[in-house]
Amino acid sequence: MPITRPALKLTHEGALKALNGALAKATELGVPQNITIVDEGGNLLAYVRMDGAKLLSRETSMSKAVTAASHRQPSSRLNPKDEVKLSLAAGQRLTNLEGGLPIIIDGQCLGAIGVGSGKGAEDVEVARAGLAAIGAEDQIP
Amino acid sequence: MPITRPALKLTHEGALKALNGALAKATELGVPQNITIVDEGGNLLAYVRMDGAKLLSRETSMSKAVTAASHRQPSSRLNPKDEVKLSLAAGQRLTNLEGGLPIIIDGQCLGAIGVGSGKGAEDVEVARAGLAAIGAEDQIP
Amino acid sequence: MPITRPALKLTHEGALKALNGALAKATELGVPQNITIVDEGGNLLAYVRMDGAKLLSRETSMSKAVTAASHRQPSSRLNPKDEVKLSLAAGQRLTNLEGGLPIIIDGQCLGAIGVGSGKGAEDVEVARAGLAAIGAEDQIP
Amino acid sequence: MPITRPALKLTHEGALKALNGALAKATELGVPQNITIVDEGGNLLAYVRMDGAKLLSRETSMSKAVTAASHRQPSSRLNPKDEVKLSLAAGQRLTNLEGGLPIIIDGQCLGAIGVGSGKGAEDVEVARAGLAAIGAEDQIP
Repeated sequence: MPITRPALKLTHEGALKALNGALAKATELGVPQNITIVDEGGNLLAYVRMDGAKLLSRETSMSKAVTAASHRQPSSRLNPKDEVKLSLAAGQRLTNLEGGLPIIIDGQCLGAIGVGSGKGAEDVEVARAGLAAIGAEDQIP
Repeated sequence: MPITRPALKLTHEGALKALNGALAKATELGVPQNITIVDEGGNLLAYVRMDGAKLLSRETSMSKAVTAASHRQPSSRLNPKDEVKLSLAAGQRLTNLEGGLPIIIDGQCLGAIGVGSGKGAEDVEVARAGLAAIGAEDQIP
Repeated sequence: MPITRPALKLTHEGALKALNGALAKATELGVPQNITIVDEGGNLLAYVRMDGAKLLSRETSMSKAVTAASHRQPSSRLNPKDEVKLSLAAGQRLTNLEGGLPIIIDGQCLGAIGVGSGKGAEDVEVARAGLAAIGAEDQIP
Repeated sequence: MPITRPALKLTHEGALKALNGALAKATELGVPQNITIVDEGGNLLAYVRMDGAKLLSRETSMSKAVTAASHRQPSSRLNPKDEVKLSLAAGQRLTNLEGGLPIIIDGQCLGAIGVGSGKGAEDVEVARAGLAAIGAEDQIP
């Protein structure tokens, strides 16, 4: 078995393009948002808090993004009856809230986008616009 | 689009006036309280712990205030079925406890008051007295 | 004495304009950077980590930004003999590293920019480009 | 040997009187300050952040107050060569910065006042005004 494997990484240009795509959609909807892009290691790549967005939703947008990057699936696919104990056992970043979507390109997870401050469906719509802006696979939560 | 926008800030005189208004009401009720005033960024502006108030309620009063400032609404308006996962995903400051009210003046949120140590309804009554002392919009939780 | 005072806030458009100005300068210099914009309360407004930037410099860029916003001056103006005890007493966000500059517009501090991953002088040059992009007062550290 | 001993506690009225005395002095000096009053257990009793005070000095004012209450002496009496290792070993609240003074009444330490945002001498002057307002023993740092 080889000791290395090739991988794809999101560039900062890619991250900002996704951020701006999400921002444009949030502006169009008139819903101020926190928009967070993380890499596949859950480390912050890009972020913006829009005028009027809820301050504490910075953390929920980060939790959503880290969850989606970790699990390589939308942040809302845990069994609701397990969501609290999973969050606690995982150090609280793991969340079942809607609005975190993995960034899948060429079948690989390069990171995730997390959106927080609107209603769940708005957060998802804004996150999907971020994915569309960079041609990542669409994710249905 | 402009790079700046005008805003109103609470002065420390305003913060202390709200604090003293809440303190007077708590004294009248005979309910010792922790009273916390934060600015719109969730940073502490003024605080008092009354004789006999519960020590740990300093933290609940802070969480209530930060939640109300962040969400620009009373701290008790989350859907109860989501309150635990929201709090965990937001780093625990987000709370659905009663007793945090935003300070709205001229239609802007300038911060919040959080009260903790009494029963929920007492905390709210004391917080509303704080708002009344500075002519802020009354808030029904 | 009034209970409110007028203030200026940075919009997210302003924050992103400063971020992009700093990013362009870092690209021109060929120095990958972490670029952090905070508001006057030290809360994150916008962020990017460039390809190749040091991961831990996300935190130094944040500390530089929070210090500059808190003290309304460049992050490198503490007396070196006090810098360690000040940082410890302030919970470690207070830093004397170069690369944090306040965002002063119309004589008011609206927040700050913190840059970290290059040499001190490079971090400062990138931060100054961020200020220039939004017409904020130039800051000599 | 008895199993209990009588003690004096500062009331919240006493804490607010000290706070207001310090506030009046800071206003007179034209130096915006963070003013923190803690009890003999190092727990927050009262606090105000004046308009224009440095945000991070909230934490230094708290560290100064906790240090003075703990050691029952001004916060600036450690041997400078030990101050960093003492701070680290004590979890960072222990500081040798000027501006923290114990509240001594009838020979007992009832808590402390910590002041931060000005120059060291200004912080001390404001803290002493807080002591004077409640007839506590003057402290020369």
